[in-house]
Amino acid sequence: MQAVIIVIGDEILSGNTVDTNSAFITSKLRMAGFNTVRIFTVPDETETIVATFKTAWDLAEVIITTGGLGPTSDDKTVPALRAFFNDNYRTDEATLQHLKKLLAERGRPELFDINKSQAEVLSSAVILQNDLGTAPCQLIEKEGKTVLCLPGVPLEMKNLVTSKVIPFLSAKYKTHHLLSRTVTVVNIPESRLAQMLTNWENQLPAEVKLSYLPMGSRIKLRLSGSGPSEADIITVFDNLTAALRPILGNHIISERAETVEEIIKDLLAAHHLTISTAESCTGGQIARLITDVPGSSQVFLGGIVPYDSLQKVKLLQVKQEDIDTHTVVSEKVAQQMSQGCQQLFKTDIAVATTGVAGPASDAHGNTVGTVYYSVRFRDKELTKRLFLPYLERSDFMNFVAQRALQTVVEMVLEETRI
Amino acid sequence: MQAVIIVIGDEILSGNTVDTNSAFITSKLRMAGFNTVRIFTVPDETETIVATFKTAWDLAEVIITTGGLGPTSDDKTVPALRAFFNDNYRTDEATLQHLKKLLAERGRPELFDINKSQAEVLSSAVILQNDLGTAPCQLIEKEGKTVLCLPGVPLEMKNLVTSKVIPFLSAKYKTHHLLSRTVTVVNIPESRLAQMLTNWENQLPAEVKLSYLPMGSRIKLRLSGSGPSEADIITVFDNLTAALRPILGNHIISERAETVEEIIKDLLAAHHLTISTAESCTGGQIARLITDVPGSSQVFLGGIVPYDSLQKVKLLQVKQEDIDTHTVVSEKVAQQMSQGCQQLFKTDIAVATTGVAGPASDAHGNTVGTVYYSVRFRDKELTKRLFLPYLERSDFMNFVAQRALQTVVEMVLEETRI
Repeated sequence: MQAVIIVIGDEILSGNTVDTNSAFITSKLRMAGFNTVRIFTVPDETETIVATFKTAWDLAEVIITTGGLGPTSDDKTVPALRAFFNDNYRTDEATLQHLKKLLAERGRPELFDINKSQAEVLSSAVILQNDLGTAPCQLIEKEGKTVLCLPGVPLEMKNLVTSKVIPFLSAKYKTHHLLSRTVTVVNIPESRLAQMLTNWENQLPAEVKLSYLPMGSRIKLRLSGSGPSEADIITVFDNLTAALRPILGNHIISERAETVEEIIKDLLAAHHLTISTAESCTGGQIARLITDVPGSSQVFLGGIVPYDSLQKVKLLQVKQEDIDTHTVVSEKVAQQMSQGCQQLFKTDIAVATTGVAGPASDAHGNTVGTVYYSVRFRDKELTKRLFLPYLERSDFMNFVAQRALQTVVEMVLEETRI
Repeated sequence: MQAVIIVIGDEILSGNTVDTNSAFITSKLRMAGFNTVRIFTVPDETETIVATFKTAWDLAEVIITTGGLGPTSDDKTVPALRAFFNDNYRTDEATLQHLKKLLAERGRPELFDINKSQAEVLSSAVILQNDLGTAPCQLIEKEGKTVLCLPGVPLEMKNLVTSKVIPFLSAKYKTHHLLSRTVTVVNIPESRLAQMLTNWENQLPAEVKLSYLPMGSRIKLRLSGSGPSEADIITVFDNLTAALRPILGNHIISERAETVEEIIKDLLAAHHLTISTAESCTGGQIARLITDVPGSSQVFLGGIVPYDSLQKVKLLQVKQEDIDTHTVVSEKVAQQMSQGCQQLFKTDIAVATTGVAGPASDAHGNTVGTVYYSVRFRDKELTKRLFLPYLERSDFMNFVAQRALQTVVEMVLEETRI
């Protein structure tokens, strides 16, 4: 089953706003068995939107728009929809009541004409109420196809997609759900792994596909499964994973993780290890990534961003003389930071960063893009230097954080080797 | 001058990768005087890409693709380009040398056929070398139009756009650059502001437009200017801003800032104030936002992520009895965190967060989505409660961080009121 997404809004085409809506929608559609074949990003112009609907109509069964549903005259999605379907407007009483309630909660008891305009919907549309905002989702069905108009506010769009749009589409098109599960395996060559899994692979049900994805020292085993029931696929995955355990034992470091921070959480939790962070040039990004993982409080005890160099001395026991001699962006300081961090938070592992994020070089002659990061595991320590002069500040912070987390994984794997 | 962007890649259409490339390119194009009229996101299919080129050809003078330039057979951008222009391939010697050098640096002295394929370019193409990667940018000119193929790796794409693509396009089409500058003004009603600026507005040069953008208690004055020379527009903006200073004095809190974290940096630097953070449920996001601003080390002394509640007691002097009585997600604990943070880092301002990011409620009966944040300015303190049960974990952390920073701005404005 095919889908097209139409992203509507001048603010996207000017580069002022990054569209994250279409990635969210395509990912949810995919899991529900719909294949997104195009994303069109178009301006707030009625004619262009109508022309794009015409193109989309020939490409897919499901057309989803996001954006352009506001109450002002520069929002053109509903007029375009009216023109495309040659339809009329009607006032939707339920939407009107919802608007009254919502605006009253926001302390605006009176409904102005401009507010009321959001209750003007296509005569042929079914309304999926937007519990978190004022623009309702209109759903129009014709010739077996479905058009759905979603608001552009990510929060409102996400809530509608998850709670109403996907359940509706799944029920209507009786699509097969498509899920995947990733098991991460280490310390074993791919050929040996394939050999060990021969019997297990031979017993894979027909609806499950397996891929081997080598990622440096790790191999990801990705299971992809499809079927009419999401719960059934999950059960199949659970059983397959359970059957892997006696074969691979400690070679499995995670049964779910996709990202490096998810692997860290699973790996540390399995070995009852704890971690803390001391970040200068990454400004909290490593802590932010680790805490993004639900349940990270099991392994992450805390982090510090000792931005001012006095804080490095005071809180992390970095020696002032080493800062004076080697500058704050140096191997010595990185090492002392990870050691001080480990002592402050009393964790098994500590990771520290210090560097020049730019845009200019620092006052001590350290060139922009220079960074040292240090990972400490109990009494072992590893410091690495990176030089990333071509990265913008924000990209630099993200890149260093990713590399530091990769090093944590490698060091933990090395030190806990079976 | 019009532009179209074609984003090529199955990984974007599956929702696995969020496309941030097109926002970057549109924003740089806009500043260089090019108006992006469409973004098409298409799969790795030669026919679809060719068809999209045909559509784009009628819409714009400049067509930029991103993605699909890898060496493997599922990368279709170059074959599509060949078909569209009915062209042949040639081996580009400079690219071959660049590939050899790059792969040697990565420890792979031998060039395989699959690597060499990236030096096979269109006969009619001019090559803009990709200094950071293996896929070169091909530039084809025909009938006054320009097609540019960029790699999908954001780092490589950004470097090419900034250093080669935009300079080339600006020189070729002699477009007028389009820049904007935002001056943020506070504590003054819009009508009074307009009155005070009458003379200044009357003297605005014809190529500069002014907009008043009210944002809660602040008003953004946005200057937009266009002209053949970027440097000249910047000089005009500098002079206009200088002329505003004697009229508005301390009402101006920033002469550049767009984001709340940029405003905080400007505002605190102007008043010689410092700030620190103590983040539990936001996991470092507030520190990450503040440190994203170049020069933030002037005002940000440090942050702490006391994730484990023992750390709150040990490092921030939160009273264990208050955690026991009120739980860690409470007004009392938030207050003590900001106070402890202020003392730890010795800053004028401290901001603290504690809450349940989810996906599940905590062991003490605090419902998922509950959060308290506290902002302390010298001896004044303000604690707010939010309830955000409908946000996913990551969105929750971002939302709380934004709200906390907004409150910092309001409190500083209130306390430093002129």
